[in-house]
Amino acid sequence: MSIGDFFKKLIPKDKHFFPLYEDLSGHILKAATALHEVLEHDDPVKHKDLLKKIKEYESQADEYTQKIFDEIDKSFITPFDREDMHELTSSLDSVLDSINGTSQRIRYYRPKNIPSEFKDFAKLILDGCQYINTAVIELKNLKKPNKILKACRKMTEIESTADDVYHRTISGIFKKEKDAIELIKQKEIVENLERTTDRVEDVSDILKTIVLKMA
Amino acid sequence: MSIGDFFKKLIPKDKHFFPLYEDLSGHILKAATALHEVLEHDDPVKHKDLLKKIKEYESQADEYTQKIFDEIDKSFITPFDREDMHELTSSLDSVLDSINGTSQRIRYYRPKNIPSEFKDFAKLILDGCQYINTAVIELKNLKKPNKILKACRKMTEIESTADDVYHRTISGIFKKEKDAIELIKQKEIVENLERTTDRVEDVSDILKTIVLKMA
Amino acid sequence: MSIGDFFKKLIPKDKHFFPLYEDLSGHILKAATALHEVLEHDDPVKHKDLLKKIKEYESQADEYTQKIFDEIDKSFITPFDREDMHELTSSLDSVLDSINGTSQRIRYYRPKNIPSEFKDFAKLILDGCQYINTAVIELKNLKKPNKILKACRKMTEIESTADDVYHRTISGIFKKEKDAIELIKQKEIVENLERTTDRVEDVSDILKTIVLKMA
Repeated sequence: MSIGDFFKKLIPKDKHFFPLYEDLSGHILKAATALHEVLEHDDPVKHKDLLKKIKEYESQADEYTQKIFDEIDKSFITPFDREDMHELTSSLDSVLDSINGTSQRIRYYRPKNIPSEFKDFAKLILDGCQYINTAVIELKNLKKPNKILKACRKMTEIESTADDVYHRTISGIFKKEKDAIELIKQKEIVENLERTTDRVEDVSDILKTIVLKMA
Repeated sequence: MSIGDFFKKLIPKDKHFFPLYEDLSGHILKAATALHEVLEHDDPVKHKDLLKKIKEYESQADEYTQKIFDEIDKSFITPFDREDMHELTSSLDSVLDSINGTSQRIRYYRPKNIPSEFKDFAKLILDGCQYINTAVIELKNLKKPNKILKACRKMTEIESTADDVYHRTISGIFKKEKDAIELIKQKEIVENLERTTDRVEDVSDILKTIVLKMA
Repeated sequence: MSIGDFFKKLIPKDKHFFPLYEDLSGHILKAATALHEVLEHDDPVKHKDLLKKIKEYESQADEYTQKIFDEIDKSFITPFDREDMHELTSSLDSVLDSINGTSQRIRYYRPKNIPSEFKDFAKLILDGCQYINTAVIELKNLKKPNKILKACRKMTEIESTADDVYHRTISGIFKKEKDAIELIKQKEIVENLERTTDRVEDVSDILKTIVLKMA
C-alpha cells in the first residue's frame, strides 16, 4: 500500500455516497422525462424507443442501488444512519421500478386511447422526480435542510393532487370506456401512475426522517 | 414552568395513549357501520352521504394516527413496547384505509348490481371492527387480557369465514355476471372487502403479540 | 423430569430445525408438482383433485410454519440468526401461499383457455421449488455453502426468465383474447404465476444473506 492509498483509507468514506445517490436520482429524472414524453405525444415509433430507454435506465439504476448497498455494508463511516440510507436507496429504486412498470404496461397493452388525464399524471410524476433530484443533491447540506424540506413538502402535495386526479380519471374511464378490454388497460395504467406518486411520497417520508434525526 | 406543570411532567404519560387508541378504534367502528349501511340499503342518495362520511372518518383517523406517533416519540414512558404501539397504530389505521378504499371504489365505479354476498362481507367487517373496539378499550387492563384474547379469537374466526365467503362470491361473480365491466367492478370491490378482513386479522395478530409480551 | 429428559434439554436444539425446514420445502415441492400437473394436462376431473390437494399442502405448511416460529421463540440456541430464520420461514411459506393462490384462482375462475405459456411458467416454478428443496436440505452444511449458492443462482435465473415469459404471455393474451372476461381470468392467473417466481427469488435472497453471515 502506498502512502497515498493509506491516507485515502483514512479519509472518511461518506462523501462517496453523495455522487452515487445523485446518479440514482438523475436516472429517475431521465426515466420520468421519458414517460412524460410518451404520454404527451401520440407517436408509436417514438414510444418504442422511449419505453426501451426507460427499461435501460431502470437496469442501470439497479446497478447503482447494488453499489450503494455494497458501499453501506463496507463503509466504516456513513453520512447518516445506515438503515435510513438503505431505506432511501430502496425507495429511490422503487420510484424507478414503478415508472418502468407503468411504461412496460403501456408497451405490452398498446391501449387504443390514452385519457388526457394520463398526461396530468405524467407531469405530476415528472415534477415529483425533479423535487427528488433537488432534495438528493442537497443531501450533502443536511445541516441546512431547508431546501430538502421544501422539496419534501412539494412531493407530499403532489401525492395529494395525484389522489384527486386518480379518482377523476378512474370515474372518467368507467363512464366513457365501453370496451372492457380497453378499460382494463387504462385502469391498470392509471393505477400504476398513481402508485408511482405514492413511491415519490415514500422518498419524501424517509428524507424527512433523515433530516429529523440530524436536527 | 409552574409547580403543577412540573409534576404533570413527572406523571407517567402512558395513560394518555388509551383515549387516543379508543378515538381511533371508535372511528373505525363508525366507518364500518356506514359501509354496512351502504351495502345493506340500495339508496343512491344515502350512499353518497355515507361514502363521504367514511372519507371524513378516514381523514380524522389519520390525525389520530399522527398524534399517537408523535406521542410515542416524545413520551418517556409508554404502556407497552414502543415498536408494538407503532405497529398497532398502523394496523388500526390500515383497517380504516381499507374500509375507505372499498367505499371509494363503490363511489367511483357505481356498480349496477351488488351481489348479496357483499352484505355478508359488510357484516363480517362490522363485527370485526366491534371486536377491535372491545379489545382496544380493554388495552388498559393488559394484565387481565382475557377479553382482549377472546376478541382476537373472534377476529381470526371472521377472517377465516371471510375467506370462504370470498371464494363463494368470486365464483358466483364469474358464473353470473356476463357484463365484463360490471364484473370488473364487482371483482375489485369484493377483493377490497376481503382485504379489509385481512387487515382486521392483522390487528388481532399485533394485539396477541402485545398480550404475550406482558404475560 | 427423568435423567434422560434432563440431558435431552441440554443438547443444543438447533438440529430440530433442519427436519422442520425440510418438511416445509418438501410440501412446497409437492404443491409445485401438482400445479405443474394441473397446467400440463387438460383434465377437469383431475384438476379438482389436484387443486384440493394443493390447498391441503398449504394448510399443512401453515402448521409447519407455526411450529418453526414456536421453536425459534423457545430455543436457546438456533443454527443461524433468529431473524433470518424467521424470514426464511416466512419466505418459504409465501411460495406455497402464492402457489395456492394461483391454484384457487384456476379453480374459481374456470378459464376456458389456458395459454400454452402457462405450462412454461408451471415448469419454471417447479424447477424453482426443486432448487429451494435442494438448498434447504443443504442448510445443515452451511459452512460448505457451494450447493446452496448454486441453487440460489438458479432461482435468480428462473425469476429473470419468468420475467420475459410474463411479458410474452401478457402481450399474447392482449393480442389474442377477445373475450374480456376470459382475458381477466388469464391475466390474473399469469400475474399470480409470475408473482410466485418472485417469491422463489425472495427465498434465494434470504438464503444468500444467511450464507454470507456464516462466511
